[in-house]
Amino acid sequence: MNKIVAAVLFFAGSWQAVYAQQDSVMLDQIYRVSFEEGKAYDNLRYLTKRIGHRIAGSAKAEEAVDWSKSLMDSMAFDRVYLQEVDVPFWDRGAPEVAYLTDTKEPLQVLALGGSVATPKEGLKAEVLEVELLSELRQHGDAVRGKIVFVNKPWDESIVETGVAYGLNSSQRSRGPAEAAKLGAIAYLFRSLSSSAIDDYPHTGGTRYVAGIDSIPAIAISAVSAQKLSAALKKGAHSQVFLRNSSAWKGTVKTHNLIAEWQGTEHPDKIITIGGHIDSWDVGEGAHDNGTGTMGTLDAIRTLMALGYKPRHTIRLVFYMNEENGVHGAVQYGERAKARSEKMVAAIESDAGGFAPRGFDIKASAAAVAWIQQQWKPLFEHKFWVSRFLQGSPGVDSGVWGEYFPQTVMFNFRPDPHRYFDIHHTAKDVFEAVDRRELQSGVAALASLLYLVDQQVEHIQQ
Amino acid sequence: MNKIVAAVLFFAGSWQAVYAQQDSVMLDQIYRVSFEEGKAYDNLRYLTKRIGHRIAGSAKAEEAVDWSKSLMDSMAFDRVYLQEVDVPFWDRGAPEVAYLTDTKEPLQVLALGGSVATPKEGLKAEVLEVELLSELRQHGDAVRGKIVFVNKPWDESIVETGVAYGLNSSQRSRGPAEAAKLGAIAYLFRSLSSSAIDDYPHTGGTRYVAGIDSIPAIAISAVSAQKLSAALKKGAHSQVFLRNSSAWKGTVKTHNLIAEWQGTEHPDKIITIGGHIDSWDVGEGAHDNGTGTMGTLDAIRTLMALGYKPRHTIRLVFYMNEENGVHGAVQYGERAKARSEKMVAAIESDAGGFAPRGFDIKASAAAVAWIQQQWKPLFEHKFWVSRFLQGSPGVDSGVWGEYFPQTVMFNFRPDPHRYFDIHHTAKDVFEAVDRRELQSGVAALASLLYLVDQQVEHIQQ
Repeated sequence: MNKIVAAVLFFAGSWQAVYAQQDSVMLDQIYRVSFEEGKAYDNLRYLTKRIGHRIAGSAKAEEAVDWSKSLMDSMAFDRVYLQEVDVPFWDRGAPEVAYLTDTKEPLQVLALGGSVATPKEGLKAEVLEVELLSELRQHGDAVRGKIVFVNKPWDESIVETGVAYGLNSSQRSRGPAEAAKLGAIAYLFRSLSSSAIDDYPHTGGTRYVAGIDSIPAIAISAVSAQKLSAALKKGAHSQVFLRNSSAWKGTVKTHNLIAEWQGTEHPDKIITIGGHIDSWDVGEGAHDNGTGTMGTLDAIRTLMALGYKPRHTIRLVFYMNEENGVHGAVQYGERAKARSEKMVAAIESDAGGFAPRGFDIKASAAAVAWIQQQWKPLFEHKFWVSRFLQGSPGVDSGVWGEYFPQTVMFNFRPDPHRYFDIHHTAKDVFEAVDRRELQSGVAALASLLYLVDQQVEHIQQ
Repeated sequence: MNKIVAAVLFFAGSWQAVYAQQDSVMLDQIYRVSFEEGKAYDNLRYLTKRIGHRIAGSAKAEEAVDWSKSLMDSMAFDRVYLQEVDVPFWDRGAPEVAYLTDTKEPLQVLALGGSVATPKEGLKAEVLEVELLSELRQHGDAVRGKIVFVNKPWDESIVETGVAYGLNSSQRSRGPAEAAKLGAIAYLFRSLSSSAIDDYPHTGGTRYVAGIDSIPAIAISAVSAQKLSAALKKGAHSQVFLRNSSAWKGTVKTHNLIAEWQGTEHPDKIITIGGHIDSWDVGEGAHDNGTGTMGTLDAIRTLMALGYKPRHTIRLVFYMNEENGVHGAVQYGERAKARSEKMVAAIESDAGGFAPRGFDIKASAAAVAWIQQQWKPLFEHKFWVSRFLQGSPGVDSGVWGEYFPQTVMFNFRPDPHRYFDIHHTAKDVFEAVDRRELQSGVAALASLLYLVDQQVEHIQQ
């Protein structure tokens, strides 16, 4: 900028306008580089098609870490390293089998992550259908020996599908123990699916409670749930056959993957960005969370391509084991705390690679208001990114953030409409990702990272 | 509402808050009905899969009108009728053929709408590549006898893809005449495609100028354009073979389709909503514009399902011939003008069925500011719809709107990332539409229609 013009603006009290103009130019460059030279889509193709799904503790998860490390090694990071993490390894075993015994009509199911197996030969029992776990108690002894079937439809009217997911996800995690306490022999859970028009079951984590029997816990597709419910309405004593062979296979040594780009001004102050590298063991982990890892990596690549020099140290973290234990984030947080690291801000991407809509922000109301006033106008009209609301951090940041309650956290929010249609299913594949949407998200992440690095002093609590 | 509460709020000067609360409850109901009982997706399946593409003047276009009329007849409209429209009928004829003559390597092409045919046996000529029509003149006599190839890449960095489309669409419409003026024998135009990673050509309208030769005008896919450009860099005298057999086939009588839901308070004042029912003659016309017609129809069905009684007459219009002539909108406007109809507002949907983002509004700056203050908060956080900006109306409303310059116009804006990837191609099929995104748009349209009907007095110019 012309110095005289800058001086005039300064004396007119318009420094803010000068900065905003510089930022606007930078964002234009970021968007251009991301769309025209972005590598996230090609990298995602490799991760999904050549490596595929990668549950924590599996050889594929370790392959994903090693391959991602080779990507980072080829970039201008100052340091790339593995952080050893112990994770419990859960293995699905043979494909699940489920059907109505009367008609032999198959039901589409997937064991929930962490589920124990049925007896080798499977099990067969009558089914007790409820919508809510809270109804179970009133059935008393009728629960004993049954398969408890929790058939709560998705609340389709909620546009913010993450909220609809949250309304029912505790029935997935608490269900097996609640049902077992009353004598149930298996737990059948209607998938957390925003679409009730296809037959894909959605897996996801569940848990048991010490001292209560662990019973098989299995997700059933929305369409199969409707089919089963209809059969139960016709014949209350209809039986279902279930067989799965999943099991915990002990503890495995695996890794978080970390890359650092040293700050020029505050090398000891750290801004983290990243997401989890593991996935469930179905589909290809494309939107969950291939887009989050390949997207945040590409956001940094974009800033590097523009010759940017960060003020703070930017640390890219690929967390291991978000899906079934969050051990990576816990161990990352413990070590960062032990080293008294200075975490000034954190950005996480773990909600898919759809068109970017904004960020949920864990910060003071004043900081969020400042962001809405200063940063939102840079994104809103030109780049169609307009949500900058106070909210929760991502799962991994939220876990390690317990050690760093002052850290300002940003949770990337892409469009929510399609995410829970494919989440934790065989449909979460590369083809479900659109290149423009993904690179638009990369640009939004890179822009936010730039703004945080430049102006984090304004939003600290 | 409790009358005493209402009175208290009134005396506290809070009528605005009371209305906003009523509106908020209404929007909740609209979203619930749209997501849970919406018919747009199923209707779209019929339109795309059973009828298919439907260029104006074709039997399929008339079948689409007749079938749509049967849908409207089954609803609680007060009047459903056809409005006769004369349209010129353009027929593509046999599939186009194009290849590099040296290598016989095929090039993926589609004649532009309105194009004349090559000689029956095709034509073969050297190719002159330019990025801009404005460069042609400097080539002077070198243009004569050549195929002019306009190879301007899409500006990928623009998130609002409609703007990128607009930057180059005049080269599609003006190109054949400009090239022919300098003696070119055919016009090859790089497709207006936001994706350069697939081999689909995009058709679209072009035009000739009286007194200048009409030469074949053909769109080439982005990938084939890159291939051709590379071949020309290797051998400047490379020739291309082109054959197409498209032709204008005279004037055909066809129809706009209109349904009216009479206003209880101002039956003479009309709010129109709708979009064009014709499509190009490739793919299935799903996003362009099956979603616009089936979506606006479903918006009205949603309000009817809620027992709503409109204050103004709501007129649903399916325009014929938006794609290659806009004759339906012109004739609609002429007749409405001749009858001195009172058009208070117009809503159009013709930008796809992706996740709804907002509306461009043709109204005074003061009216738009009022909408941003009063209506935007009803949509923004809960329903993820936040763009309410001054802008241009849709093509059909814009055309008939010339007779009604005072009419406030709303142009539905779904997410723009994917639209110009599939626009006017064989990829614009039912499978490219997501049910949640479509019904979310239906809810946004129904909500806007409700608000306009209730409060249009506040936004009239």
